[in-house]
Amino acid sequence: MEKLDKRVDVWMVGSIGIDDIETPTASRKNLLGGSLPFATIAGAFAGATVGAVGVIGSDFGRTFLRRWETFGINLEGIQRKDGPNFRWACRYDDNLIERVTLKTELGVFADFMPEVPESYKNASFVLLGNIQPDLQLHVLEQADKPRFVVLDSMNLWIDIARPALERVIRKVNLVALNDGEARQLTGKWNLRDCATAILEMGPKYVLLKKAEHGSLLFTDKAIFIIPAYPVQMVKDPTGAGDTYAGAFIGYLAKARVTHTAIIRKALMFASAMAAFCVEGFSIEKMEHISREDVAKRVHELWQMVSIS
Amino acid sequence: MEKLDKRVDVWMVGSIGIDDIETPTASRKNLLGGSLPFATIAGAFAGATVGAVGVIGSDFGRTFLRRWETFGINLEGIQRKDGPNFRWACRYDDNLIERVTLKTELGVFADFMPEVPESYKNASFVLLGNIQPDLQLHVLEQADKPRFVVLDSMNLWIDIARPALERVIRKVNLVALNDGEARQLTGKWNLRDCATAILEMGPKYVLLKKAEHGSLLFTDKAIFIIPAYPVQMVKDPTGAGDTYAGAFIGYLAKARVTHTAIIRKALMFASAMAAFCVEGFSIEKMEHISREDVAKRVHELWQMVSIS
Repeated sequence: MEKLDKRVDVWMVGSIGIDDIETPTASRKNLLGGSLPFATIAGAFAGATVGAVGVIGSDFGRTFLRRWETFGINLEGIQRKDGPNFRWACRYDDNLIERVTLKTELGVFADFMPEVPESYKNASFVLLGNIQPDLQLHVLEQADKPRFVVLDSMNLWIDIARPALERVIRKVNLVALNDGEARQLTGKWNLRDCATAILEMGPKYVLLKKAEHGSLLFTDKAIFIIPAYPVQMVKDPTGAGDTYAGAFIGYLAKARVTHTAIIRKALMFASAMAAFCVEGFSIEKMEHISREDVAKRVHELWQMVSIS
Repeated sequence: MEKLDKRVDVWMVGSIGIDDIETPTASRKNLLGGSLPFATIAGAFAGATVGAVGVIGSDFGRTFLRRWETFGINLEGIQRKDGPNFRWACRYDDNLIERVTLKTELGVFADFMPEVPESYKNASFVLLGNIQPDLQLHVLEQADKPRFVVLDSMNLWIDIARPALERVIRKVNLVALNDGEARQLTGKWNLRDCATAILEMGPKYVLLKKAEHGSLLFTDKAIFIIPAYPVQMVKDPTGAGDTYAGAFIGYLAKARVTHTAIIRKALMFASAMAAFCVEGFSIEKMEHISREDVAKRVHELWQMVSIS
């Protein structure tokens, strides 16, 4: 992609997909998907300048790129390769909670070797989105001593690449997993026990995500409970976790500080952003809201957990 | 039971059981159970003077009564009948989340006709614990214009006594249901939609309980998210919901006010109490904690949802 002069506050690596999504009330094809569009756009909503590291195939349309760029994302780290783009399809259950994967075609994503552009390298904040842990290590080695690195992963890598995953966990500041993944990784059921086990692997923070039930942030000294915003009309949950992670690190990158109080505020911001994400297919809802809309929802969320 | 001179701040009606509980690590028989012991004891922890309305059989031991009275509960509203006490048995799954009922023997509870002692009748606060909705109506009619009535119910009554349940819902200030029951009652999935439908039936407040995920309080204007305290070592979840309800109304009864800010504080108190309940079998944990222990946990819970 073309080179921009603007330095980035944070860069993120992840997948870029073309998705088919079936819900009880709709069936949508050829949607912009993958973790990276959601995460980077959410980070941009926090006011951060975001760089994207990923790969697209020859069938990834210009329209997708234009829509993505509209959010001011720096796409210099996106490689275009000959061959089909990563494609994924799923079907959600009646309540939009569980989903079954109908199709996973890796395409050019199978040989993805992420490279961090020179202009990103001194960014202080990094999101290692859910890709193969060895690639997360490879891409992290290209960063110039980042101050705060967030790691996302998934059940697949816990199954087939645990040693590499444990190596990358040791190198990051915050590990974000959903409750099921944390239980799978640690072999423990109680989430406090899961968090303790993961903290012992090295990171200062562990974030355990519980979808519509919010999340729990653990340090060795404290627990913070982050509510989920109660969404009235969920259309498509795809990308909510990526939105959460991207909004979170984008908020930190904009604030340029990483103390615990800011981390808590960043998570409330992330919760509000993720609630918008699920109100539309793909990135569609995020294309129709303003930063003021997000600020209003963050305020609402604080009201819901405060006395006054 | 003997008559006490002390007037009560709140009275509660519910079941009094003798329970057998199996968990993955323990099997305990002949435990004090039923909704009423849990609810009244939790209310007493809030500092309220609590009256109990229920029935016991001839096999309900003096030891149970002495342990119950230790908490300062007024037991004048407890009838002793000839015949076997209500007995219940259940087995929990490996994670102490789901349970199967192994035995329900109603005994004297089958013909229970609750009577509110004269000395309770001008109490301003009432908890209608989970009993047959017609009995809830019968007992509520004996109260002298209470200021705040909380209703608990269960899936069984939604199935077999819906008209009566709807009648009693119209007469109370707050309806407390778990998420599954609210969905069953309203035929809606989204919890905001469930709450709207129940609010339209009459009560000012709807409390939707999500066990270890906390609860949501709805009015027609606002939503309050109440976190669950993250318990590290759950021994027996039995009675947690009753503890929650009893602690909540006990807190209001002690405060003698019912505005929304107090209701929110009362729910945080209830959350802390319920977290103690599950740390022991039956009422055992509550026999080994002080009001200071509860205050400390309430403070901890506020810290977990606040910035500072």
